[in-house]
Amino acid sequence: MKIRVFVSLKDGVLDPQGKAVGHALESLGFKGVGEVRVNRVVELDVPATDKAEAVKQGEAMAHALLANEVIEDFSVEVAA
Amino acid sequence: MKIRVFVSLKDGVLDPQGKAVGHALESLGFKGVGEVRVNRVVELDVPATDKAEAVKQGEAMAHALLANEVIEDFSVEVAA
Repeated sequence: MKIRVFVSLKDGVLDPQGKAVGHALESLGFKGVGEVRVNRVVELDVPATDKAEAVKQGEAMAHALLANEVIEDFSVEVAA
Repeated sequence: MKIRVFVSLKDGVLDPQGKAVGHALESLGFKGVGEVRVNRVVELDVPATDKAEAVKQGEAMAHALLANEVIEDFSVEVAA
């Protein structure tokens, strides 16, 4: 089953990549762009047969590897 | 208005980061994990007042900077 793990920086954590993208957009002429946050989405196939099990496996993978929980939050969804 | 720009590698383009994550998950004991793809989601505030205009601005930013259209596809959605 295909799942998506959304990994994003926690609120309040500085996003240098987002800042760089924001400045670059400004210099390309895009005025008035507010805060920019760059997040990750990990798409993967897990060997689960039902949705609840697939989400549980995704959460276990996020805890183990995909998210640095000191500075990142994550959520898991089953891909449509 | 807050928008999200999803940037993903085109089908058929090798994803070395995804391969590395896949191997790491396997070594951590997660068996049977299929293909892993790591994509980006850029969240940003654009100075648009309606949804169509916000999506249009997001697409222009993706064309100009956020996506490398030789190897990446993108889609834009207005964040809920």
